[in-house]
Amino acid sequence: MTAFLQLAIILAILLLCAKAGGFLSTKLGQPSVLGELLVGVLLGPSLINIMHLPVFATHETGEFIKEFAELGVLLLMFLAGLELHLEDLARNKVPSALAGVFGVLVPVGLGYWVGIVLGYDNPHSIFLGLTLGATSVSISAQTLMELKVLRSRVGFGLLGAAVFDDILVILLLSIFLALQNGGNAIEIVLVVVKMIAFLGGSVAFGLWGLPWLTKKVSRIQISYGSLTLAIIIMLIFGIAAELVGGMAAITGTFLAGLMYSRTKQKSEIESGIKSIAYGLFVPIFFVNIGLTVNIRELDSSAILVTLAISLVAILGKIIGSGLGARAGKFTWLESLQLGIGMVSRGEVGLIVASVGLQSGLLSTELFANIIGLVLITTLITPPMLRAAFAYNKKPTPVVGTNA
Amino acid sequence: MTAFLQLAIILAILLLCAKAGGFLSTKLGQPSVLGELLVGVLLGPSLINIMHLPVFATHETGEFIKEFAELGVLLLMFLAGLELHLEDLARNKVPSALAGVFGVLVPVGLGYWVGIVLGYDNPHSIFLGLTLGATSVSISAQTLMELKVLRSRVGFGLLGAAVFDDILVILLLSIFLALQNGGNAIEIVLVVVKMIAFLGGSVAFGLWGLPWLTKKVSRIQISYGSLTLAIIIMLIFGIAAELVGGMAAITGTFLAGLMYSRTKQKSEIESGIKSIAYGLFVPIFFVNIGLTVNIRELDSSAILVTLAISLVAILGKIIGSGLGARAGKFTWLESLQLGIGMVSRGEVGLIVASVGLQSGLLSTELFANIIGLVLITTLITPPMLRAAFAYNKKPTPVVGTNA
Repeated sequence: MTAFLQLAIILAILLLCAKAGGFLSTKLGQPSVLGELLVGVLLGPSLINIMHLPVFATHETGEFIKEFAELGVLLLMFLAGLELHLEDLARNKVPSALAGVFGVLVPVGLGYWVGIVLGYDNPHSIFLGLTLGATSVSISAQTLMELKVLRSRVGFGLLGAAVFDDILVILLLSIFLALQNGGNAIEIVLVVVKMIAFLGGSVAFGLWGLPWLTKKVSRIQISYGSLTLAIIIMLIFGIAAELVGGMAAITGTFLAGLMYSRTKQKSEIESGIKSIAYGLFVPIFFVNIGLTVNIRELDSSAILVTLAISLVAILGKIIGSGLGARAGKFTWLESLQLGIGMVSRGEVGLIVASVGLQSGLLSTELFANIIGLVLITTLITPPMLRAAFAYNKKPTPVVGTNA
Repeated sequence: MTAFLQLAIILAILLLCAKAGGFLSTKLGQPSVLGELLVGVLLGPSLINIMHLPVFATHETGEFIKEFAELGVLLLMFLAGLELHLEDLARNKVPSALAGVFGVLVPVGLGYWVGIVLGYDNPHSIFLGLTLGATSVSISAQTLMELKVLRSRVGFGLLGAAVFDDILVILLLSIFLALQNGGNAIEIVLVVVKMIAFLGGSVAFGLWGLPWLTKKVSRIQISYGSLTLAIIIMLIFGIAAELVGGMAAITGTFLAGLMYSRTKQKSEIESGIKSIAYGLFVPIFFVNIGLTVNIRELDSSAILVTLAISLVAILGKIIGSGLGARAGKFTWLESLQLGIGMVSRGEVGLIVASVGLQSGLLSTELFANIIGLVLITTLITPPMLRAAFAYNKKPTPVVGTNA
């Protein structure tokens, strides 16, 4: 069998299973990402070990799938940036900022403490904390939409907080990774200078060069020119983040998305990028996460660790984000609702964990724990939110069937 | 540098150069595919040899680009099938069929004769003929659109003829490849049985299973479910064409497109597939064609061969398709216009040539000649068509500025 035929078969199987898993997941009232992850776990070394079946093991198909998955993360973060609306942020910026920042700091602190208790060194403990700090815009938004309270004070506050959370975690992650790679003071200064050079350069390009360039390209007659330009710009931001800024490529593509969201070509490219991402690459990314996990490595003590980490992650978010929102003049009930809404971990947590696994800052055992944590927090958020919103006496935005 | 970073850089460069080449090409009044091909030739071993620069040669990036390109061909042929409208065929089916069939048979015969004269054996000569038989729906249509005569008797006749041409060439190619792989009479019968099994099975599935399946999937709530299903079905048709039918994977995806064009979900998936194809994979396919060619191998005698083959290809199409159209009751002028419209070779010719190169039925020298032929016929068609339509005394469909 040729290498390409093997790849085609694997791609067809992974896509089919991913979407089937996502479908079953939504049927059970859960976000589809949960099912896509679980499908990956089932197809991976935990059970079927599909990539190592005799039929598929003769070529480097696994490598190809891995690179496909990496393109998937870049696209996902590009879309995350692209979908942010600065106006939504502005509406409740004080409680959002406080909830976002404390919603990161408290779990990061608690995660660091858990890491130390578990006997890890400082870098590994800090990385565990960072992983616990990451929430997911998409999962929060989807949960709120299902509860029909997205367009409320809590809803906008939560969206805003999730944005601050995203930015802060990715920034902390990038700074931490850069510091990890640097050693002495001069190197650290150089690392910071490179980071500022990349951030400054790309923001300057995004503010002045990009609107001109996208307008220019959208006017010339070339099929799918704007779409391909967006992919090229995304790749260049990702490459520059690594090569110039010493940061993660995903930070670069997230920034590219943020910059693109301000251009007039945003709507022109958005549906195309979404088709490419959600139709093909992103399902492969989610399934590939599962393919890299072996839950057989989770013995009873590992299960205990997963439960402990999950508890810390859940309480950390509720306490941190909740108190932050309260400090921002939300009522106690609103603060609790917002805190619960921040509990669900998803893509960003997985991305951070993948980066940790690749750079050796997260052991494979802890990575498996994190997958468990994502599953648990994703599963627990919808029912907890439903319960918290049942206390709303008079739901302002919609006539309530929430109870 | 990591393998993924290398890949990201190469992808960004190839996409940028492809679109830039396509843009310059359209600026010069030529189809963009011409520019994308030329860019590939420039980046390939003929000049820059980008894949073997020291920075990029450390990983299997070339392999990845090749597999990316192969996904591009599958998508391209899927779209070719998807964009066919059976009604357009029906309108002028007799002249279309005659022009299509003779437009294949005459160049195939002439190409075979040229092959024998050049000293090739029977299989290689037949393959050369098949390569000369292939025309391109997209290039013909684009040329006619530019001349604003697409919606005319010649226009529909030409579109229809191009369809018959496509189907006939791909069928002949698949049968020929199957016969090549088989040996004795029983094996050939088996080859034909397998082919019928695949064609029968996939058409039956396309007629009865696919409409039900696509309807079912379009109704369930799963993001980009219909689009991913189309990709999965396309891959399965391609895989089945090779594994069950012993045919080329592109025949399978072309058939998948034809079948999908009959479903109600056609419009739902079309824009997504086009984004994936034209935004990302297809430019890589065109550039990769150029990357595999080394025109330095074309010495003065090779240039003579290219010119001779091109002359045969041009005359073969004009005579074959023209006489076919005339037999189908077109006027002499209409027949000439239709024949000239069939001259431009493009994707399909390149696909057939690639298949030949991979299976060893086309030497690398002849492959380089074919690339030259595609460049020449693509360049010559628009001015020739413009000249032929200048003889139209009263252009019926639009007020004429064609002269």
